[in-house]
Amino acid sequence: MKEWKAEILSIGTEILLGNIVNTNAAYLSRELAALGVLVYHQEVVGDNSERLEHALKESFARADIVITTGGLGPTTDDLSKETAARYFGCRLVRDQKAMEDMRRMMEHAGRKMTPNNDKQADLPEGSIPLYNPNGTAPGFILEKDEQILIMMPGPPSEMEPMFREQVRPYLKRKSQQKLVSRTLHLCGIGESAVEYRLKKRMDELENPTLAPYAKTGMVDLRITAKAGSEEAARNLIDPVEEEIRDQFGDYVFGADEDTLEGVLIERLAELGFSITTAESCTGGLLSARLVDYPGASRVLKEGFVTYSNEAKEKLLGVRHETLEKYGAVSSQTAMEMAAGAAESAGAQAAIAITGIAGPTGAVPARLGQPEKPVGLVYIGYYLDGEVSYEECRFHKSRRANRENAVVRGLNGLRMKITEKFPRKTDQ
Amino acid sequence: MKEWKAEILSIGTEILLGNIVNTNAAYLSRELAALGVLVYHQEVVGDNSERLEHALKESFARADIVITTGGLGPTTDDLSKETAARYFGCRLVRDQKAMEDMRRMMEHAGRKMTPNNDKQADLPEGSIPLYNPNGTAPGFILEKDEQILIMMPGPPSEMEPMFREQVRPYLKRKSQQKLVSRTLHLCGIGESAVEYRLKKRMDELENPTLAPYAKTGMVDLRITAKAGSEEAARNLIDPVEEEIRDQFGDYVFGADEDTLEGVLIERLAELGFSITTAESCTGGLLSARLVDYPGASRVLKEGFVTYSNEAKEKLLGVRHETLEKYGAVSSQTAMEMAAGAAESAGAQAAIAITGIAGPTGAVPARLGQPEKPVGLVYIGYYLDGEVSYEECRFHKSRRANRENAVVRGLNGLRMKITEKFPRKTDQ
Repeated sequence: MKEWKAEILSIGTEILLGNIVNTNAAYLSRELAALGVLVYHQEVVGDNSERLEHALKESFARADIVITTGGLGPTTDDLSKETAARYFGCRLVRDQKAMEDMRRMMEHAGRKMTPNNDKQADLPEGSIPLYNPNGTAPGFILEKDEQILIMMPGPPSEMEPMFREQVRPYLKRKSQQKLVSRTLHLCGIGESAVEYRLKKRMDELENPTLAPYAKTGMVDLRITAKAGSEEAARNLIDPVEEEIRDQFGDYVFGADEDTLEGVLIERLAELGFSITTAESCTGGLLSARLVDYPGASRVLKEGFVTYSNEAKEKLLGVRHETLEKYGAVSSQTAMEMAAGAAESAGAQAAIAITGIAGPTGAVPARLGQPEKPVGLVYIGYYLDGEVSYEECRFHKSRRANRENAVVRGLNGLRMKITEKFPRKTDQ
Repeated sequence: MKEWKAEILSIGTEILLGNIVNTNAAYLSRELAALGVLVYHQEVVGDNSERLEHALKESFARADIVITTGGLGPTTDDLSKETAARYFGCRLVRDQKAMEDMRRMMEHAGRKMTPNNDKQADLPEGSIPLYNPNGTAPGFILEKDEQILIMMPGPPSEMEPMFREQVRPYLKRKSQQKLVSRTLHLCGIGESAVEYRLKKRMDELENPTLAPYAKTGMVDLRITAKAGSEEAARNLIDPVEEEIRDQFGDYVFGADEDTLEGVLIERLAELGFSITTAESCTGGLLSARLVDYPGASRVLKEGFVTYSNEAKEKLLGVRHETLEKYGAVSSQTAMEMAAGAAESAGAQAAIAITGIAGPTGAVPARLGQPEKPVGLVYIGYYLDGEVSYEECRFHKSRRANRENAVVRGLNGLRMKITEKFPRKTDQ
């Protein structure tokens, strides 16, 4: 089985100026990984023939497949195609179907063909055309001496369907190897702790491989196996997945497409519970995260943003004395917020967040108490009659502290549900 | 005046696997362009010492400055630093301040130092440390024989402040040329309309240059001038700024560090008004955006997430008949939400958002009415006794539709305030 190596070469001065983020490279890398094609390099060059030719040479010295995006539009004078044709020693010929497609599209849009449009229909002789139903510039695949060059237009709305519908099937036909991966999502445990516990195992494992990825407040563990069939690859993955689930238990909240909010919402729906939120420093981020999950309406009816003390009293029934005595950022306030929100919404579950997101600390509620530092957050929980809290100390930017608080709150409630209402499979 | 050339080298297997999008490269490219530093190449390599060393050699053959991000965490065995030290022929030494910072941070977070954490405090001998208040791994600047290597950690929440507060001032000191830029923020007008009106002017202008950048629901126009002094550069910028403000009027909501939410909040505070929010499909994103601005507490006391019809009735007093007759996604409901939220919160201003964020359309409120399409959003406004609405149709993903709705709502209220309560300078 041949191991393919590919490189991604993005062409566009606007990427080098930082005007656009190179999402194409991420998309292609992900798709290629899923096809078992290794990507060791991504590169970006401007709309410059000389530098592009140099980059093509370099890339083909290391890889079998080079995929480019961009540089095919009418404004760049077909620089990429001409450079590619020169590199492969062939000439450009006009593709009649591409020409007709383009005419029809321009007519449909009520635009006139300009001479610089015509050139977009030129393709290297002997190449496989990649027609573009979503734009004017076609792409192509050029094979020569075990080297494969795939050039596609830059706009993701044109490139992604072109890859999905034409390039992926082409690569699948060429390759015999199947690569399957499964990603386990962990929350409640730090990246370095996960790494520390798995370091030896990660070094040992070759097929499948095991790799960690940190996300805000979470860690992903990806298990990737190669085999002759998808089933054989999955059989390699299963025992490693089981091993990790045994080792990390409830820290593992899901796999692959699962999200923390999705897992929590599905579990609440199973229990017939609804949830509400009471937010101070996060200002609605928590409820917005829940709403991110399609189907949130089954369990989330309403949420409260209570930024001021008055709103905490009025909407959530937090006692004036509690705010006076302990301050808005306190375990007592967090718990009263959670219980009050649940009561007001008639919900069986609630998460409340109150904290100092930054940039400056809070004045003490009473003289003599120490200042409450930036990053101090209290999360209050209400679950089926029980109230509890968690104290967190974050140390990042205002925005990162808030995002971490949201993840902590979602995961905190998830863990409490797992403990209080274990499923058969959880036991 | 020397023209600097820089290359950006991102280190991380997770980028090559497409697990994360390389926003760091876009950020750095934009920042370097603003400093007058040319970027001809961006490159991504995995956590692999040999390939990193090769990339460093290649980059320094073309450029004076190489900036790397990533590969400094505890999990990669400090591969990047070791490779850099070897390339520059120096050894790694433990930095005491970095060590103390890290200890304090871990303590603060209630986490234990693991042995793989220690190595993060090692830096190449003779380098300028870049301490990291937002994470554990410090970065550094290493200068040798006219070559400058700048290594920073990968997470944007650590890298961006490190660049802004330490690297940018360093690069500014090194350079003799003063490059000053001013960015004007526009909202309420599309990117192509801005481009169309400015195309000729942008082509004409050389110093200062004028360039547009599209953001979610907004357009930035950046004016950049080069001169021997900052004052001289600013004198070049001023007339172009005035020209743009004349041409685009109230579409220009601010400059440089100004944000849409910040401008709105400051204007509300000047008027002595408070604001509240009522959100359905955006689920708290709007209030969270307001809370993003430090000092939001002066005008935002509370907000409502009313996802269900019952919550709209109960918390905002939307009439049952309105929901029955026109549906939750209607101008009538949006206006009642805004008015009801303002009344409940005792606020002089309110923004309400109700819409179909996707992924599927809504069933009609009454038989025979057409289905409401994904992306249809109604924004209700309340301002000092007056109620109004805006209908929007967005065509992007669930998340993008919601973000666009939030921007539209903030800007809609801003424009209404400008119209109803013009400042002297607005007239």
